[in-house]
Amino acid sequence: MNSTSPIGLFDSGIGGLTVAKAVRNLLPNEDIIYFGDTAHLPYGDKSATAIQSYSIKIANFLLEHQCKALLIACNSASAAAFDLVKMYVGSKALTLNVIDPAVGYVCQHYSAQKVGLIGTVQTVNSGVYARKITEKSCGVALSSLATKLLVPMIEEGFFDNSISESIINNYLNDPALQNIQALILGCTHYPLIKTQIEAFYKGKVKVIDSSVVVAEDLKKHLEQQKILNTKEKQGTLRVYVSDYTHSFEESTKIFFGESIKLEFHKLWE
Amino acid sequence: MNSTSPIGLFDSGIGGLTVAKAVRNLLPNEDIIYFGDTAHLPYGDKSATAIQSYSIKIANFLLEHQCKALLIACNSASAAAFDLVKMYVGSKALTLNVIDPAVGYVCQHYSAQKVGLIGTVQTVNSGVYARKITEKSCGVALSSLATKLLVPMIEEGFFDNSISESIINNYLNDPALQNIQALILGCTHYPLIKTQIEAFYKGKVKVIDSSVVVAEDLKKHLEQQKILNTKEKQGTLRVYVSDYTHSFEESTKIFFGESIKLEFHKLWE
Repeated sequence: MNSTSPIGLFDSGIGGLTVAKAVRNLLPNEDIIYFGDTAHLPYGDKSATAIQSYSIKIANFLLEHQCKALLIACNSASAAAFDLVKMYVGSKALTLNVIDPAVGYVCQHYSAQKVGLIGTVQTVNSGVYARKITEKSCGVALSSLATKLLVPMIEEGFFDNSISESIINNYLNDPALQNIQALILGCTHYPLIKTQIEAFYKGKVKVIDSSVVVAEDLKKHLEQQKILNTKEKQGTLRVYVSDYTHSFEESTKIFFGESIKLEFHKLWE
Repeated sequence: MNSTSPIGLFDSGIGGLTVAKAVRNLLPNEDIIYFGDTAHLPYGDKSATAIQSYSIKIANFLLEHQCKALLIACNSASAAAFDLVKMYVGSKALTLNVIDPAVGYVCQHYSAQKVGLIGTVQTVNSGVYARKITEKSCGVALSSLATKLLVPMIEEGFFDNSISESIINNYLNDPALQNIQALILGCTHYPLIKTQIEAFYKGKVKVIDSSVVVAEDLKKHLEQQKILNTKEKQGTLRVYVSDYTHSFEESTKIFFGESIKLEFHKLWE
C-alpha cells in the first residue's frame, strides 16, 4: 500500500458518487477510482450470493488498479459482502464500508438515546445497523423505517420541490421516527435530500449524512496506516460502469455535482 | 471452454486426490490441475466467509490456468462456497461439487428408503445433504452420523488393520445407521476405507463412494457441454499446494495411489 495509490469506491450504480463527493471534499488530493455496477443495479433485489460475486469481481478490478483502500459505497453490498471482501482483499488494501462509520458515530454521540434510521427495504430488513449497534453495546435504541419511494424520487430528479417535500414529510411523520435525537441517512442517495430533512426538523434532530462520516472515517484509517496522500496537487477521478447509458452519465451531475465522463468496463458473466 | 483444457479440482488438503484418482480412472486422457489449500486446512474449522474467500482465490488460480471445469473436491467447501463459486465463475467454466452427485444418486436409486451418511462434524452439522435431498422431494430418509475420528485415523495411515476395524465397526453399529439400504461416504478421505466398510455390511448395504459418482457426473456434464477430451493420449496431472511440507508429499501416495511431486503456490493473505 502506497500513499499515492488511488482510493477505490464501488456501488451498484451512480448513487455512491455522493460518497465519492464527500471524499473529494475532505481529501481533495487523493486519486479516486469509482466503479458503478450499473449492469446489476439495484443490489437491493439480489441474493447475498449474487452481491458477493459482483463485489469480488469489482474488488479484483480495483486491486488491479493498485487501490490502497476499497470503500464499499453501498449499503446493500456493505451488508451482504463486506466481511467476504475484507477477508478476500486481506493485506492488499484497506477495506471499509458505509455502515460501520455511521454506527460508530451514533454510539459515540447518542449513547442511551433514541436514533432513527431511514433506508431501502433491503437495508432496513437486513437488520445490519441494529445488529452492529447491539454488538457495540452502546445503548443506542434504533428505530428503523424503510422509505421505499425516496430512491426513485431522487433518481427522477424530485428534490427541493413540493412533491418531494410531501413525500419526505409523510415518511418523517411516521410513528417509528418520533422522539428521536438523531436520524441516520442509511442510503447513499439521501445526502441529496438532507437539506429538506433538516428543514423538517428545524434543528431539533441531528441529521447524520453517512457520506460525510464515511469520508472522515476513511481519512482516519489512511492516517493510521500512514498512507494519506499529502502531495499538493488536485486528485484525479475516474468513474467506471459495467453498463453504459447516456442516462447514467446524466445522473453524475445529480450525485457528484458536476458532469463526469463514464468509462465502460464489463464484468464477466 | 475448450475440450483440451484441463479440469481443475480443489480441496482444503490432499484428501481430495481420491476424487482426482476417480477422475483419472474414468477419464484417463483429461489433463488435471489439483489445488490443495494446505495453508488453511482443515476447512471444517473455518467460518463460511473464510472458506468462500479461499475458494474464490483458488477459483482465480484455476481460471488463470484455463480450466474448463472447476470441481470442488471437498465437502466443507462444497457446502459453504459452491453457490458463490458457481455464480462467480459464470460462463467461464463448468462448476461442480461433490455433494449434488451423491444426492442425485440416492434420489434416483433409493427413493422412499432409508439412507445413511457419514462425514465430518462440519459436513453433518451443516445439514447440506438433508437440505438438498428435501429440495428434490425424492422421499429418501437420510440419517447422518458425524464420524470425527475417521479423518485423523486415515491420515495416520490406519486402515486395513484391526484398530481401524474396531473404530469403523463402532461407528457403523451406531443406532443412527441401522436398517439403512445404502451409506453415503460423505468425505473425500473415506474411499480409502470403503473396502473395510463393505466387509462390515457383507453386501447387505450399498456403500456409495462419492468420488466415483462425482467422476461419472463430471463426465456426463463434459459430454453435455461437448467439451470431453477425446484425444488419445495420457492426461497430465499437476498438483499445487498453498503450503509445502514433505509430509503432504508423502500423503499423495495414500490418496492418489502413487507419489506425486507437489508444486508450491501461495495464496495472498
